[in-house]
Amino acid sequence: MAYSGEPILAEDLLFRPAHSLIDQSLHSRLGATTTNGDGFGVGWYGEGAEPAVFKSTEPAWNDRNLREVAGQVRTPMLLAHVRASTGTPVQRSNCHPFRHGRWLWMHNGAIRGFHETRRELLMAVDPALFADIEGSTDSEALFFLALTFGLADDPFGAVARAVGFVEDVGRAHGVGDPVQMTVATTDGDSLWIFRYSSERQSRSLFFSTEIATLRALHPEVEILHALGGEARFVVSEPLRDLEGAWNEVPESSAGVVRPGKDEIRPFEPIRPA
Amino acid sequence: MAYSGEPILAEDLLFRPAHSLIDQSLHSRLGATTTNGDGFGVGWYGEGAEPAVFKSTEPAWNDRNLREVAGQVRTPMLLAHVRASTGTPVQRSNCHPFRHGRWLWMHNGAIRGFHETRRELLMAVDPALFADIEGSTDSEALFFLALTFGLADDPFGAVARAVGFVEDVGRAHGVGDPVQMTVATTDGDSLWIFRYSSERQSRSLFFSTEIATLRALHPEVEILHALGGEARFVVSEPLRDLEGAWNEVPESSAGVVRPGKDEIRPFEPIRPA
Amino acid sequence: MAYSGEPILAEDLLFRPAHSLIDQSLHSRLGATTTNGDGFGVGWYGEGAEPAVFKSTEPAWNDRNLREVAGQVRTPMLLAHVRASTGTPVQRSNCHPFRHGRWLWMHNGAIRGFHETRRELLMAVDPALFADIEGSTDSEALFFLALTFGLADDPFGAVARAVGFVEDVGRAHGVGDPVQMTVATTDGDSLWIFRYSSERQSRSLFFSTEIATLRALHPEVEILHALGGEARFVVSEPLRDLEGAWNEVPESSAGVVRPGKDEIRPFEPIRPA
Amino acid sequence: MAYSGEPILAEDLLFRPAHSLIDQSLHSRLGATTTNGDGFGVGWYGEGAEPAVFKSTEPAWNDRNLREVAGQVRTPMLLAHVRASTGTPVQRSNCHPFRHGRWLWMHNGAIRGFHETRRELLMAVDPALFADIEGSTDSEALFFLALTFGLADDPFGAVARAVGFVEDVGRAHGVGDPVQMTVATTDGDSLWIFRYSSERQSRSLFFSTEIATLRALHPEVEILHALGGEARFVVSEPLRDLEGAWNEVPESSAGVVRPGKDEIRPFEPIRPA
Repeated sequence: MAYSGEPILAEDLLFRPAHSLIDQSLHSRLGATTTNGDGFGVGWYGEGAEPAVFKSTEPAWNDRNLREVAGQVRTPMLLAHVRASTGTPVQRSNCHPFRHGRWLWMHNGAIRGFHETRRELLMAVDPALFADIEGSTDSEALFFLALTFGLADDPFGAVARAVGFVEDVGRAHGVGDPVQMTVATTDGDSLWIFRYSSERQSRSLFFSTEIATLRALHPEVEILHALGGEARFVVSEPLRDLEGAWNEVPESSAGVVRPGKDEIRPFEPIRPA
Repeated sequence: MAYSGEPILAEDLLFRPAHSLIDQSLHSRLGATTTNGDGFGVGWYGEGAEPAVFKSTEPAWNDRNLREVAGQVRTPMLLAHVRASTGTPVQRSNCHPFRHGRWLWMHNGAIRGFHETRRELLMAVDPALFADIEGSTDSEALFFLALTFGLADDPFGAVARAVGFVEDVGRAHGVGDPVQMTVATTDGDSLWIFRYSSERQSRSLFFSTEIATLRALHPEVEILHALGGEARFVVSEPLRDLEGAWNEVPESSAGVVRPGKDEIRPFEPIRPA
Repeated sequence: MAYSGEPILAEDLLFRPAHSLIDQSLHSRLGATTTNGDGFGVGWYGEGAEPAVFKSTEPAWNDRNLREVAGQVRTPMLLAHVRASTGTPVQRSNCHPFRHGRWLWMHNGAIRGFHETRRELLMAVDPALFADIEGSTDSEALFFLALTFGLADDPFGAVARAVGFVEDVGRAHGVGDPVQMTVATTDGDSLWIFRYSSERQSRSLFFSTEIATLRALHPEVEILHALGGEARFVVSEPLRDLEGAWNEVPESSAGVVRPGKDEIRPFEPIRPA
Repeated sequence: MAYSGEPILAEDLLFRPAHSLIDQSLHSRLGATTTNGDGFGVGWYGEGAEPAVFKSTEPAWNDRNLREVAGQVRTPMLLAHVRASTGTPVQRSNCHPFRHGRWLWMHNGAIRGFHETRRELLMAVDPALFADIEGSTDSEALFFLALTFGLADDPFGAVARAVGFVEDVGRAHGVGDPVQMTVATTDGDSLWIFRYSSERQSRSLFFSTEIATLRALHPEVEILHALGGEARFVVSEPLRDLEGAWNEVPESSAGVVRPGKDEIRPFEPIRPA
């Protein structure tokens, strides 16, 4: 789940489902009925130049410290993730969101055949960045490839090149459809989202309707009046049963949420020359 | 889940579902699709006078140490539990099974109104035993009441008196149906089981058919030939879809599994004089 | 360690020893050279009516989440504690500081003979408060006795009565010197401190000199200019080697740090009538 | 600490210092007075083809599960390690001993400049082995280089070539003395030990005198009669103050402990061709 908008108390986003747009589903995503949570993480922007990241292998719903901290944190940008491991160890360094400088990154999906292609993918990471890789996941590898291909300068292009490279290497190793992904990444000001898979049947991704529109549609829903006009959510499943609230990100698309006009555009991997 | 019978490798019981009677459901109980695991625990008998207990708040499926240890432990009696907290903290001392001397105890269900009655219930625990209470759960309190009422001498009677006392106190505090329980408890040689609730609509409890009978019914199922003739399982839900394998413990009943003849009998709380 | 004064970033107090009055010793207290850290905890006041508490059984120095959070928290009152267990389990609910309403409490020392007197001490806790006891330590029991004896109305008197009661019960159980303590407790506005032991040889406790005085004494020390004029520290050992910075709390004394005039006075237990 | 000899209960090695040759120092190594334990691990050989490994980031002294398990495990070969991180994350996958097939490996010391040389060192690991690297430590990298250079066939030679390679790469990156190490590695039957550093001032390493000799020297020491004749310990510091019990492994040496005759020989890195 990603939130962008006016500063909001993290607790309201994560733990007040009855009163928030996130509602029961997030409540379950964070643990009440989680299917095998293999760790969770929350990243946000506050004091200092870089975002803070609270990650743990404990089920989110049982993490008392998370609850304590969430009640103390106000942020204009928040990324929250529940991990479903695709094989690599369950440890804090393998939980999302991953951080590099001001950037946060989270990924749902997998790089198929990663056990075999991992070495080659890691070798393509900029040597100056390599030492900053902390864990052993495909998600973090993809992040560092995106950084290598220029995420800080051209997020859309960098991710397209990273995916193109991963598909290339995967197919060379006999993997037909190497990439399945939804990605959310941010520098604290804008939020870029991606929905793509090699097989063109990607995991779901939704973004919320503008709050002003929703308020008009549903004047009775309290939380909509508590949220600011810039509030935008990006989620894996349409959460609360609120008509008109959720819009599917189209298959093979990318988008950006930022103050003012947001944007969605088609996404196509860029193969290595 | 409780196992009694010839010594068996813990790993075969807990982590080899494809090959064992426990199968997919236990696999899920331990975490693959767990609904809110709030800790797990495994107790077994091996070296030394007292049973060993491995408990943790980590999801069982992700606990690498549990897997490592399970592959090294052979035991004739094993209790495994996944906790669903009814409010008290998720910490190792609140995970089942609880231990006292040679006794292990696990409980699914709840003592309703425990937050209000806890003080009175704890005060009824034998002062000599009180200091051994490590956690803050209703389940552990019930165990120590059973110990107080003579679990080591007369398990059926002790549990009946403990339940009768808890119901008495609960009703005095305005709780109509104070007790919901399935309990498995053992001294390492015999395994006592209980299914009861104040409202007479108790959580489910099943025991397995004699292995010899099952082998005759299902000669093709490999694991049945790997299990000894004394093997007996007691579980919350009928696990593997094997016809004739599971028998429901009747409503308001108790039973004992031991070498030779097992027994099931009606269970009725004994009210304090 | 307790801090009271102008709002300060928790990270500066806990993790910037080279730049803060806390210095190397706190660095070690939190783990670099800790003698058997059995958990740590940090409590602070920010959003909302009640303080937040971040506690863990992980060694503080290795807790990445603590570091992340400390960089995001500004507070006018902070309590930090490293636990040395006197027997009860190492679990989050047994870490200090303990919280009740707006109150935080931490205690170094022990109630001797607690294993034997625990039941009697717990029974003296106000039944309305009893259910809020989460852990199993002597420190938390002492806190709840202080609450029972009126901590919120008269902290000096309440603690004196609590200590007097504990000594009474201890001696009845054959324990000559039941209480060894330094205590720091706060409601977010004022900070009360206590140094006492039944044997009148109490663990050490120090408070810092007024910042204005220290600045005059040591104009070259940078951090003194970063701290506000109301800044006051209370610590177990004189930390940084800064002459004139630390003042010992006298044997059998209590004190209060608050905006304006602080106070120190003799402390004597009040025996039950 | 490494033990090789007749099967012994792990608990006696790890937790009965008063009664064992390990004594107070191990007691402290495991946590009572640990200087910054960043995780611990225990590896042993029992059921099944591969050794079991119990590792955790919790301080060893507080790990209740370790105590429970240690009382249930008998093994003829045991490696126990307390980690002092040299920068990489504190997580289970970065704790020693590391395992590959039947091999266990633990290392005290560091590869200096690892942050810069890590990429090059990892690239030299046999691609078929690369995917088995779970963590991010220098110690695990050294292990996998030793495996690459033929640890399973010629342990002395493989480690010499691995160290020679690491020194070569280090010096190319401007690191004068890249390697500081004591290493213990085993396949379950024999135990190879190494003491070396580029600067020829290596961390200490000791092995115990033959038990028969010790018994003659110290007939009053009980534990010596409980240990078998083949019992041999290898430790970082001479533990118990027992005259004649400990022998220093010479600077730049390697050795092997196995049934029958043990051996010590000089150790010299083998530079890449």
